[in-house]
Parts: sequence; structure tokens; C-alpha cells
Amino acid sequence: MGKKRIRDYGIAIGQMKPGTRNQITDVAGVKVGHVTLNEANLRTGVTAILPHPENLFQDKVVGASYVINGFGKTAGIVQINELGTIETPILLTNTLSTATAADALIDYMLKTNPDIGRTTGTVNPVVGECNDMFLNDIRAKGVQKAHVLQAIEAADVAFEEGSVGAGTGMVAFGLKGGIGSASRIIPYPYGTFTIGVLVLANFGRPDDLRLDGVAIGAKVKAFLEKKQALEATAQEKGSIMMIVATDLPVTHRQLLRLIKRTAAGLARTGSIYGNGSGDIAIGFSTANHIPHAQKDGLMTITCLSDQHLDPAFHAVAEATEEAIFNALTASDTMIGYEGRIIYSFRDWLESQT
Amino acid sequence: MGKKRIRDYGIAIGQMKPGTRNQITDVAGVKVGHVTLNEANLRTGVTAILPHPENLFQDKVVGASYVINGFGKTAGIVQINELGTIETPILLTNTLSTATAADALIDYMLKTNPDIGRTTGTVNPVVGECNDMFLNDIRAKGVQKAHVLQAIEAADVAFEEGSVGAGTGMVAFGLKGGIGSASRIIPYPYGTFTIGVLVLANFGRPDDLRLDGVAIGAKVKAFLEKKQALEATAQEKGSIMMIVATDLPVTHRQLLRLIKRTAAGLARTGSIYGNGSGDIAIGFSTANHIPHAQKDGLMTITCLSDQHLDPAFHAVAEATEEAIFNALTASDTMIGYEGRIIYSFRDWLESQT
Amino acid sequence: MGKKRIRDYGIAIGQMKPGTRNQITDVAGVKVGHVTLNEANLRTGVTAILPHPENLFQDKVVGASYVINGFGKTAGIVQINELGTIETPILLTNTLSTATAADALIDYMLKTNPDIGRTTGTVNPVVGECNDMFLNDIRAKGVQKAHVLQAIEAADVAFEEGSVGAGTGMVAFGLKGGIGSASRIIPYPYGTFTIGVLVLANFGRPDDLRLDGVAIGAKVKAFLEKKQALEATAQEKGSIMMIVATDLPVTHRQLLRLIKRTAAGLARTGSIYGNGSGDIAIGFSTANHIPHAQKDGLMTITCLSDQHLDPAFHAVAEATEEAIFNALTASDTMIGYEGRIIYSFRDWLESQT
Amino acid sequence: MGKKRIRDYGIAIGQMKPGTRNQITDVAGVKVGHVTLNEANLRTGVTAILPHPENLFQDKVVGASYVINGFGKTAGIVQINELGTIETPILLTNTLSTATAADALIDYMLKTNPDIGRTTGTVNPVVGECNDMFLNDIRAKGVQKAHVLQAIEAADVAFEEGSVGAGTGMVAFGLKGGIGSASRIIPYPYGTFTIGVLVLANFGRPDDLRLDGVAIGAKVKAFLEKKQALEATAQEKGSIMMIVATDLPVTHRQLLRLIKRTAAGLARTGSIYGNGSGDIAIGFSTANHIPHAQKDGLMTITCLSDQHLDPAFHAVAEATEEAIFNALTASDTMIGYEGRIIYSFRDWLESQT
Repeated sequence: MGKKRIRDYGIAIGQMKPGTRNQITDVAGVKVGHVTLNEANLRTGVTAILPHPENLFQDKVVGASYVINGFGKTAGIVQINELGTIETPILLTNTLSTATAADALIDYMLKTNPDIGRTTGTVNPVVGECNDMFLNDIRAKGVQKAHVLQAIEAADVAFEEGSVGAGTGMVAFGLKGGIGSASRIIPYPYGTFTIGVLVLANFGRPDDLRLDGVAIGAKVKAFLEKKQALEATAQEKGSIMMIVATDLPVTHRQLLRLIKRTAAGLARTGSIYGNGSGDIAIGFSTANHIPHAQKDGLMTITCLSDQHLDPAFHAVAEATEEAIFNALTASDTMIGYEGRIIYSFRDWLESQT
Repeated sequence: MGKKRIRDYGIAIGQMKPGTRNQITDVAGVKVGHVTLNEANLRTGVTAILPHPENLFQDKVVGASYVINGFGKTAGIVQINELGTIETPILLTNTLSTATAADALIDYMLKTNPDIGRTTGTVNPVVGECNDMFLNDIRAKGVQKAHVLQAIEAADVAFEEGSVGAGTGMVAFGLKGGIGSASRIIPYPYGTFTIGVLVLANFGRPDDLRLDGVAIGAKVKAFLEKKQALEATAQEKGSIMMIVATDLPVTHRQLLRLIKRTAAGLARTGSIYGNGSGDIAIGFSTANHIPHAQKDGLMTITCLSDQHLDPAFHAVAEATEEAIFNALTASDTMIGYEGRIIYSFRDWLESQT
Repeated sequence: MGKKRIRDYGIAIGQMKPGTRNQITDVAGVKVGHVTLNEANLRTGVTAILPHPENLFQDKVVGASYVINGFGKTAGIVQINELGTIETPILLTNTLSTATAADALIDYMLKTNPDIGRTTGTVNPVVGECNDMFLNDIRAKGVQKAHVLQAIEAADVAFEEGSVGAGTGMVAFGLKGGIGSASRIIPYPYGTFTIGVLVLANFGRPDDLRLDGVAIGAKVKAFLEKKQALEATAQEKGSIMMIVATDLPVTHRQLLRLIKRTAAGLARTGSIYGNGSGDIAIGFSTANHIPHAQKDGLMTITCLSDQHLDPAFHAVAEATEEAIFNALTASDTMIGYEGRIIYSFRDWLESQT
Repeated sequence: MGKKRIRDYGIAIGQMKPGTRNQITDVAGVKVGHVTLNEANLRTGVTAILPHPENLFQDKVVGASYVINGFGKTAGIVQINELGTIETPILLTNTLSTATAADALIDYMLKTNPDIGRTTGTVNPVVGECNDMFLNDIRAKGVQKAHVLQAIEAADVAFEEGSVGAGTGMVAFGLKGGIGSASRIIPYPYGTFTIGVLVLANFGRPDDLRLDGVAIGAKVKAFLEKKQALEATAQEKGSIMMIVATDLPVTHRQLLRLIKRTAAGLARTGSIYGNGSGDIAIGFSTANHIPHAQKDGLMTITCLSDQHLDPAFHAVAEATEEAIFNALTASDTMIGYEGRIIYSFRDWLESQT
């Protein structure tokens, strides 16, 4: 892909081993697609995460969602935690396009499932969002329903990070944010499992940034001050969406415990879950599929003992932290709406040597 | 309006006194508007509840939401409980039109607030929903964005109940459901306050129905069986949205406690909060406005002692129960999608004498 | 046992069939034991519910707890919902004896499990409570640790209801409350399952009482007024503990959904979950045991489809409602602390014919 | 006091200014008292935190509690979040002594409030705990009720940190843990406010430890390995209790938001909120007192705008992180039950120069 990642700078977050790609798609079956709108006043887009390649409505995955700070407009969360399942692709976009994305996702689900609204009930679209109003003309509502379908269709195992898809116009720590991902391998005695995280990073003040724990915020702030590029941080309106995928067999309760550990990884980068930040985690496990039509009534599901969850907790925290740095590292300096400029983290990083 | 209400049949739910209209608009400032789509295969619509007549985004109300059973797609709930405020009108519609309604509400808020997405953050649209697929061609997604704006503009103190607005195609207990409302007056030593409830009733099996507590379900079921009209109840896909308004000065925590008592009123009608039912309460208090621009930093808010909440708890339960019966009583028998027929509760009621 | 139950008066709550005993012990393995302290100024005691006869710490049951209204001091709830298990007998007692009961339960667990605090971690005692201060000299803290052990040892399939154990001094709707129980049988295609409920009923105002849904509160209040016995109701300090047992195979999430339906049964009796009432449900399923020492790491658990939960929801609501009436019906008129008198519900019931 | 703190080693956590003592007692009115049991096989004790010097039952403080990970037995949490108040001193002790402490606290409250259980209701004792079984003979249940009263009576503005009170036998990151505290000053335009945190630190693996963000875990592990002192970490049974005090005027909802930020400070030290760790925050604000007898019915409370909360969020995170390091730094190497040894963090720190 040509884009840089944080490990390219010799910085490896945490103690555990990443998967082959060090991305969420290391979890078998998971695919990610982007549509990027980077033209005129638009710096926005859509990112779609597909938990598996089959019909998700008929063949749901175990799902959970967790609100760290609820200044956010994410759709679909209520039902995920009541029923413990996710039945659509997960979309990410800008805040004011959440409804457009949800509507397009409804259309997509209706088209691929003729029984919805006829012989079975309705469908629960899942859409996360962050506010990209600094670089993007968010009031223009540039995301069209067609873009959403394109993002779903574009989904693949290989996907780009940085200023792409929903991440196009995002800002984190006063630097260019966006999409980032990472993964961890967990060698259990009964098999090797993978945890993957994809973030849409759009949060944080420059002062607070920590690189692998080390406080670099003061330096970053000075760097931006010199460039007269602190305007974005005067408006702390950020958020972060964290999507966690795993093939670990877990129940909804266990999955919920697992995705709560995104809060640890997030805090390590310097976040204090600011008032204006919608910090939300959504997770799924591909290990136990829940069929929509449950004729038999009784199901058998496999799950881990809670006593064995610690390695998975570590994996979630590490992958979240690294995914945030991959979002920063993969993003180039961007000039956006009204000529505003947001510098790349790499500009700072490379200025340090 | 000419429509019947449950008190017209000599049945007064509970022990407390209703307000002048016995509707949610007895709470000063509250208005309700409908757009009804009853043509061809459509039996659906939009209902808008306006907490006060001023700019809600600039002048928010204390808000809370409570999920009794989360098989539902309501938008906006996460932020309501994090910040304790509601900043848009509350919309109700059919499940597959939730995104359309949210999108239209975003447009409305952008138009009336030029600062959104420019000098201030974004906006949190609140939309509740029920599934009307038995009488309505829900896959047609008949609700257009223009309808939403019309419902907001149509909002008034006087409003109709029954098969109107979002209630047009709803079914409850195998009978025609829809929009219902009721209110209660609470004489406290320090002033007289009002609690109003508006429901979108679309839940329940005929067997379970209780009229003022008395089990009438077996009779209703026999009545419907004789008319060969039990098909709707084979598909239990209902839900109920309960909107609670009050001028009682309460904090978010107290308001949350208050709206939880909708569960008691709901249970009295025969509901057990069925698996497939999205049973959700959203409430607001108009007593303490929370300005969007909070320059001063410190606010003074007035609130009730928790020890004085019991009368308000009773009021919520009673008004919820009566609102459900007003929804049933105001609705006429309807023939809908594919010629399906749902009988009016009045047909049964009047057959009993 | 000679005590009356509500069915002895020809009143059968709900539509479903009760189990053999119509008590919580219809769920195989469950046992209940009481110690009753009815002497001098004491009208209190302890009730123990044993989920199964084996070592609960080594062989835990799936557990869940749900707080309807949290004005209460129940111990153990936090861990139940984090780990989804219950590992001790469940105790009920008066509010100020909660700590004594928890301490005795810790001693019991230490004695029966020498590994606790040595080679394994600690233990989570579960104790529910209601305030019996009207009839009982609650400040005397009459419950001793020995009483707790006696209640556990007394546990049996056959157990008494009414003013026994923790129910000895309880008051409900201004009438004599206490321990009540009921059960329901659920015939699923894949087997017949049982749901049992045991309540400690100590809540409600006379005005609000509803018998099988019918408002009898005004009559009950008049009856008590005539007897000058409304003093207890001036102090609404009640609560209700609801223990739900089942052999239905469910996950923690499903069990939590199930026990939430106690709120429906409770509301049917007239409760609006008053401000001062600690209304709390604790449930367990005996179908999937969770071993303390989980060497294998991966477990297989059987669970119901959520789409099949509605009969179980009905069963919980019906059994809760009937258990409350069994508590009322089994209790005799009692004279307690400072000569205060609380009349039996039977006194009123028999005065009506 | 002579004990070392982390700032004595030139390490200042975060960007904000501490209060005079850099302890929780910088919040006016707050006092802390310890009873330390360090004799024979006992390495345990009790710590009492008094929110203000008056009668807490009559004059409650706004309170909130937050469960990060619920593998814990803390008492009193349910009611704190329902009513939004704390009405007793907050006690900390070892896990198996929680009930003893709660019982002693009930006695203390009964003695100081003759109306409890007579003319008013009961009382909600608040007790947090951690498991000190590695160094302490926890099964001996060494804490007596008299110790609890002594800790309350010993409460003062000046108090010790490290292996004192409830912290006596605690272990964190394989090193000696215990009691630590820190505070931060927040200069708002409308006044200067203080946030203080006290922790009972008993969590974490050596590998994970981070000092001001820098990963020192591998070095600490190697240090302990060399000393053959890794046995404690084989049993990850830790927990952390975090008590947050402030004089900032906040509602319950805002206080809850505030204390959630302890999770950020905790994560910065290396915690991933392990499966077996009861990670629980309890907070109170002394700014708005809530009288027990609320004759007037309507109250006026002052609160901050949510938009001004970020500095307070930072303060909580920073003070939590520093409090944990003060717990580590103030503790000496200890030999405990069965001759087990846990080294002081200072041993490692001083070995690094």
C-alpha cells in the first residue's frame, strides 16, 4: 500500500504478537471497504466493516457495544446489547451523514433479504460516526446513499489506513487522524485466536499525546504552535469509534467485557475520554453464528472460561493503542474546508531525528 | 375531534386527576403534530413532539431515556443519557423510516441553526419507531423527508389520537393501535405540576389484554377468532414508544427514575415486555432549560426532593396506562396492505353490552 | 402445612400451569430454609435459598441480578452481573442484619471450601433485604450468625410461606406481608421446563392493591381505616426481593432479560416501584453449571433461542404476581414491636363475602 | 511523615498543579483514618474516608459509583447511584472483612443517629475491599468491629500512605501496594476547585507496569525474578478501589462522568482491568449537601456546565495515576503470611541509578 505504519518507525506497541497483516482483517472472514470523498469542500467518506462474507441477517454474529463517553450519535447500539447479535455490516461516516448511511444500509438489507418486513421483522442497521467539521464541509452532507453501497461492495481483506473512507477528514491530537488498524494473536492451549481492532480516530488535544506511553504532547503542541496550526484543537469536538473483531468463542457478556478494554488502549494514547468525545466500542465474535431462523429452539455455543480472558484483554488494549498510531502514521498532511491545514504526525515524527 | 376516548366509556384509569385535555400537551409549551399516510398500500406516518416552542438546540430541555426491552432501533438515546438533555423535537415513525426521519430532522436543525457544524458541534436527532408491517407496506418506505417537516410544522396543542401520524398502521393486542395520550395533575405544596404521556402503541397479544386491570384477553381473543382476525398476532413484532413530558423540576437522574415507571403502566395493560418488542421511554422536563452556549459555567437548577417523587411515579404509571387505552379507543377498524383487516377495540367494547 | 394460599380462594393468577408445589422448589434441586425470630420485640428472621444441593462455590450456577429501584442494600449484585454466576446460597433478612448475614455466609463458605483465601480467591456472598422496622425492633439486630447457618441447614424442598424467616415482620399494602412463592411449567417442544419465584414482600400502599388486576385498594384502605391500622402505611419504607429460579438453559444475558419481567408481575399487584422501595430481582439457572476450576478453558453451553423466550417471560410475570399474593394469604394478623398490629389479607378477603 | 512519595524522585505525573498536601484531604472537610493490623499472620486493616466532619446521615453528600470491572464485593453501590447520595463514611478493608466493616458501620450510624430504624428508614453503609491473601492470613478475618470505629475516630486531614490501614497487606504489579493519594487544583473563572483521589492499590502484573507512561515492566519483572519474588503474580487476584473527592458543584450525573475518568489514570499505570480485578470508583462532591429531612420539597443546586468538565476529567485521571505511584512509593518491603516477601517499588527504583 505504500503507506507508513508506526512499526515502520521501530515502535512496537505492547508485548503481544500481531497477525499477518496487523489489521482487523487478520480475523478470518472480516473485510473492510472505503469510499473516500476528497474533492472541493468535501473531506469525508464511508467505511464498511463486514464481519463475514455470508448473509449477515440470516447468519448473525455475536455482538456487543460499549459506550465509554456517550456524546455521540451511533445507531443500532440498543438492540446489539439486548439481543447480543449484529446482523448488518458496520458502517462508519461523519456525524451528519449517520442517517444517510443508516438509510442506505436499510436499502441494502431489504434488497439482499426479501423476507425483511414481509415474513420476518425489520433490521437493525449499525452506524458509527465522528465529526469531521474542521476539514470537511459537514453541512454539505456529501455522503450519498450510493457511496455507502460502494463501500460495502469494495470491502476486502486488504484495505488502506489513514485519510480514507470515514477517516478522510478526521483530526486527532491536532494532527491528521483517520482510519487505523492493528491485530494481536493469542496462543491458547486449545487453539490460536486473533483479535483485530479498527479505529476511526478523531479525538484528543496535542498536549495529551503519548507515544507508547511517553508524553510527547508538549513537543507536538510546540511544533503545531510554530506552524500556527492549533486552531483545530480550540474546538475539542472529537470522538473515536473502535471496532473489535475476534474469532475467540465468547458469549455476549464476555464480548462486552472484552471490548471495554478498548478504554485502556485509548487512555494510553493520552485520552481522558473528553466531554465532547463520543468514545464508543462495537465488537463481534465470528466463532458462534446465531441463525435468524431458529427452528430448533435450543442452541449449543462454545465459550471461553472467564479465567482465561486476560490475554484477550491485553490484546484488545494493545491493538487499540497501535491502531490509533497507525491512523496517525498513515495520514498525510491535509488542506481542507476553508483552506484549513492539519499536519501529519509523520511531519512531527520525522522532525524529531 | 369527535374521536372517542376510554373515559367516554366510563372507565377512568387510576386515582389521580387528569389535566384539561388529558393529553401530553397539558404540559405548558408541548405541541404535537402528525402527518398521516393512508393511501394505496401505505398505512404509516410521522408524529412530532415539540418540548417547547423556542429553538430547542439553543435552549435544551432536561432529558432521559430508558430501555425496558431493547429490540428496537430508536435513535439518539446514547447522548440523551450522557448529557441529560434533548435538543431536537422527538419524532416517531415506522421502523424502516427511522433513518429518513432522522435525516430530515438533521436538515431541519441545520436550517434553523446555522452555527451547527460551523462554529459549534453537531446535533443529536431523536427518533422512535414501531414496526407497522402488518397493515403497511413497510418495504415501500413511504415516509419522505418532506413529511417529517410537515409533522413538525403541524405541531399544536390540540392533536388527534388513534390511527394518525406514526400510529396510522399500528396494531396492539390484535386490535387497532396507534397514538394515545393522557395526563395527570400533581398538587404539591409548592405548586401544581403536570405529567403528560404520549404513546405509540403497537404491542401485545389479545390473550393478555387487561382493561383497568381486569383480564379481558380471553374474550377479545374469542371475538377476533370469530372474525378470523388473529393473523396479526401470529407475528408478535410489536413495540411501544412512550414519551413523558413534565413541568416538574427534576434532574436527569430523577427524570430517569420517573420515566422508568412507564413500565408499571405498561404492565397493567397486559404487557410482559415481549422478546420482540422495543419498549422504550423518552422523557423531558421543561422546568430547567439548559442553554447550548453556557458562558457562565455555573448554573443553578431547581429540583424536587426524591422523597417527594411518589406522586409523580403514580402519575406516570396512570397516564401511560390510560394513553394506551386512548390509542385503542380512538382507532377505527382498518383495512390495510394486502387487504388485511384489524378491528377496533371499540367494536369489541360495544359488543359487550 | 395448613397455611392458606391464594388459589384456596379460587383465584388463579395468569394463564399458565403451576408446578406440583407451585413453589420455587418445583425447580429440581432448589431448597429453601427459614429461621423465624418471633419473640419479645423481634419479628424478623432469615431465609436461605439454595440453588442446588452440591458445593455451590465449586459448581456455580448461571446468575443475574436486576435493580428495578435501587433504594436497597442487597449484597453481591455487582459480581453476579460481571461474571454471570452465583456461588453461594442466597440469603434474605432485615436491612440492618444484611452485614451479619453476609458475614455468616462468608464463614459458612470458608468452612465448606478450605481453598478460599488460600489457593483460590475469595467468595461473593449474596444477601437481599427488606426493612421490617414497623413490627420488628430492627435496631436490636436480632439476627445472629448462628441463625444464618440454621436457615441454610434447614433448607428443604418443602417450606412455609407467610410470616416466616425473613418474612416474619414484613408489611405489604398495609397488610401482613412476608415470604410467598409460586411456579409455572413451560412446555417447550424440546422439553418441559419450570420457573419458580420466591418473594420477600414488604412494599405498597393499601390504596394501590389489585387482586388479579382488579383494584381493591379503596376497599382495603377503608377496612384498615375502620380498624385504625393505617399507621404502617404512613411510612412507605418497603421493598421487595424477588428470587427467580429456573432449569431453562439460558445465558447470563437471557437470564437477565428473564428476571426483568418480575417488574411486570410486581406492577400488576399495584406497585409503581415507589421511591423508598428497594425492588430487586436475583435469578439463577440450574441448567448450565460453571465449574470454579476451569482447566479446559473452553466450555460448551446450551441455551434457548431468544425468539422462544416469551413463554418464559410470561411465566416469570405470573409467578411473581402469584407469589406476592401467596405471601399475603399465608400471613396471619401480627402484633409486633410497641404493640403495633398489622392485619392479615385474609381478614379482609373473608370480610368480603 | 517521613515516607517517600513519587515526586521525591523527581517524577511529576501529568500537567496540573497538586493541592497543598497532594492528598484527598486537600478537599476541604475530608478526613482519612487508618487502623493497621501488622502482627503475627495479619497484614491487613481498615481505612475510613469521611466526606465531611458533620453528621453525614442528616447531611448527605452527592455521590456516585462506577464499576470498571465488577469482580468485587463492594457494599452500598446500588443505592448510591439510585439516590445520588452517600450518607456514611466510606470504609476500605480486605475482602473477607467487608461484612464485618459494614456491620460496624451500621452500629456506628445507629449510635450517632437514634432516628434510624425508628422514625426514619435504615442506612446504606459503603465499604470497598481488595484481597490481601498473599501477605495476610485472610481466612483469620483479623478485622474486628472495634477496629472500624477506631479508624473512623482516627480520621484526620493528615494521614499516612503505603502499607497502612486497608493497604497493609496489598500487592500491586508484584510490588508492595497499599494506600496512595494525590490531588489536583482546577482554576475555573468562577473559583478554584480541588479534586482528590485516594486509592487502595492491589492490582497488576509486573510486566505491565508503566512509570509516567514509560514501560518499565520488563525491568521490574527481571528484578523480581532475580529475587525469586514472582510468586504473588502467579495469582492475579488483585483489585483497586478509587475514592474521588471534590468540592466542585456537580450533579450525580456529572459526578458519575467525572469518576469514570479514574479508568484513564488506572490504564496509564499498565492496568487492562484484569478479569479477576474488582476495579471500582466511588466519588462524592461536598459542594451541594442533600439534607435527610427535606421538608421544603424543592431544592436549589448549583452545578457546572458539562462543557466545562474537561479540566476536571484531566484532574481525576492525573490524580488517580499519581495516587497509585504514591501507594507504591510509600510502601516498604514486607514479609507476611507464611514468610512470603513482597519488595518495595523503591527497591527497584533505587536500583536503577
